[in-house]
Amino acid sequence: MEIDYSNIKVIGFDADDTLWVNETYFRDTEEKFANLLDQYETKNQIDQELFKTEIKNLELYGYGIKGFMLSMIESALDLSNNKVSQTTIQEILNLGKEMLSHPVELLDGVEEVLLALKDKYRLIVLTKGDLLDQERKLEKSGLSSYFHHVEVLSDKKEDNYKNLLEHLGIPSDEFLMIGNSLKSDVLPLLNIGAKAVHIPFHTTWQHEEVRQEDHDNSHQTLNVITDILKYLK
Amino acid sequence: MEIDYSNIKVIGFDADDTLWVNETYFRDTEEKFANLLDQYETKNQIDQELFKTEIKNLELYGYGIKGFMLSMIESALDLSNNKVSQTTIQEILNLGKEMLSHPVELLDGVEEVLLALKDKYRLIVLTKGDLLDQERKLEKSGLSSYFHHVEVLSDKKEDNYKNLLEHLGIPSDEFLMIGNSLKSDVLPLLNIGAKAVHIPFHTTWQHEEVRQEDHDNSHQTLNVITDILKYLK
Repeated sequence: MEIDYSNIKVIGFDADDTLWVNETYFRDTEEKFANLLDQYETKNQIDQELFKTEIKNLELYGYGIKGFMLSMIESALDLSNNKVSQTTIQEILNLGKEMLSHPVELLDGVEEVLLALKDKYRLIVLTKGDLLDQERKLEKSGLSSYFHHVEVLSDKKEDNYKNLLEHLGIPSDEFLMIGNSLKSDVLPLLNIGAKAVHIPFHTTWQHEEVRQEDHDNSHQTLNVITDILKYLK
Repeated sequence: MEIDYSNIKVIGFDADDTLWVNETYFRDTEEKFANLLDQYETKNQIDQELFKTEIKNLELYGYGIKGFMLSMIESALDLSNNKVSQTTIQEILNLGKEMLSHPVELLDGVEEVLLALKDKYRLIVLTKGDLLDQERKLEKSGLSSYFHHVEVLSDKKEDNYKNLLEHLGIPSDEFLMIGNSLKSDVLPLLNIGAKAVHIPFHTTWQHEEVRQEDHDNSHQTLNVITDILKYLK
């Protein structure tokens, strides 16, 4: 497949699971959460109930760790029929606080790619989630200086991207997005006439998964982020 | 006092307690929270403990309702020596969800002011707190169309404003900020060479209060937002 990137002037990078590890910490915390409640339900049942609660609360809480903490507490009350101990609630708060203060672990090749591209393109970070949490992660990552601009979006749908490109004065055919989520980082971009490259991370949150038939052939999928340097001169 | 606003091209409006009611709902919820826990401590003690917990968590959680919910749960556990009932935790979650889905109540004169200024100045909203929550309030307020741009900041210190004005390409002496918090909406702006107008709201969160000696004479304080129309032609 030949895709022409010669128009591209601005590159947007997703952050979580594209620049640094994120989903892994959610999976680890879900595992610990299930252990805390294993007297009430099976691990599978606990996972499902937590996911249901998160999706139910998504409109109200949005993405990010604080909403996840609140959904864990709500699920613990529901799963235990209000019998969960106060100490367990305390431990859930601590699990969330650990996530919020976790060190940032860069993915392989990220710094090499940013260094190679930073003088030829305008690089921006486009992420969703808690504003403060994302700003803090970028700061801790040591990558701030590569980016012209950081934008935390409340969601990553077509309209969010359209508004952003308009506000930044970037024509959509000059914009390339790089990210690990087909649903959030690839498909909405292709739909508004921008380009997108998919770099899957080994773990994807259920909510970010899309059915295979939603895919199309108008984007590239790369194994590692450094592969992008073969296509962007 | 004569202040010259003739340079001004862009006006930033704080949102909570400047465009619409906000702090009142926090006060109401704190009252309900204290009632839920009145078997453990005095109202005064509960208020103080909650405030202490919020400030302790501010660096980790940032501003906004979700962090407030998590701090209420933590305080309830602390204040009751882990004896608070599971039903009370559930009720705290519900109090927070009610805050998040509360209708937006515009302050008097806001729409009149925006209508009068929108064609002569570029108007932007500058707020801090949860990104999703602030976007939702602006949407519900019906005021979106008056604003060129909305920016949710993780904090409102000098550096946050400096970065923002730089990113938007606005010289500081062409910028006027209007808001209810001396600490967040007025003093940092004066310190970076911008202008600011203070419109106090009847209730101010303790954390936003500044000592009188921090004030200076280089800004105006207005009783109602419509008074600004006397100064901006």
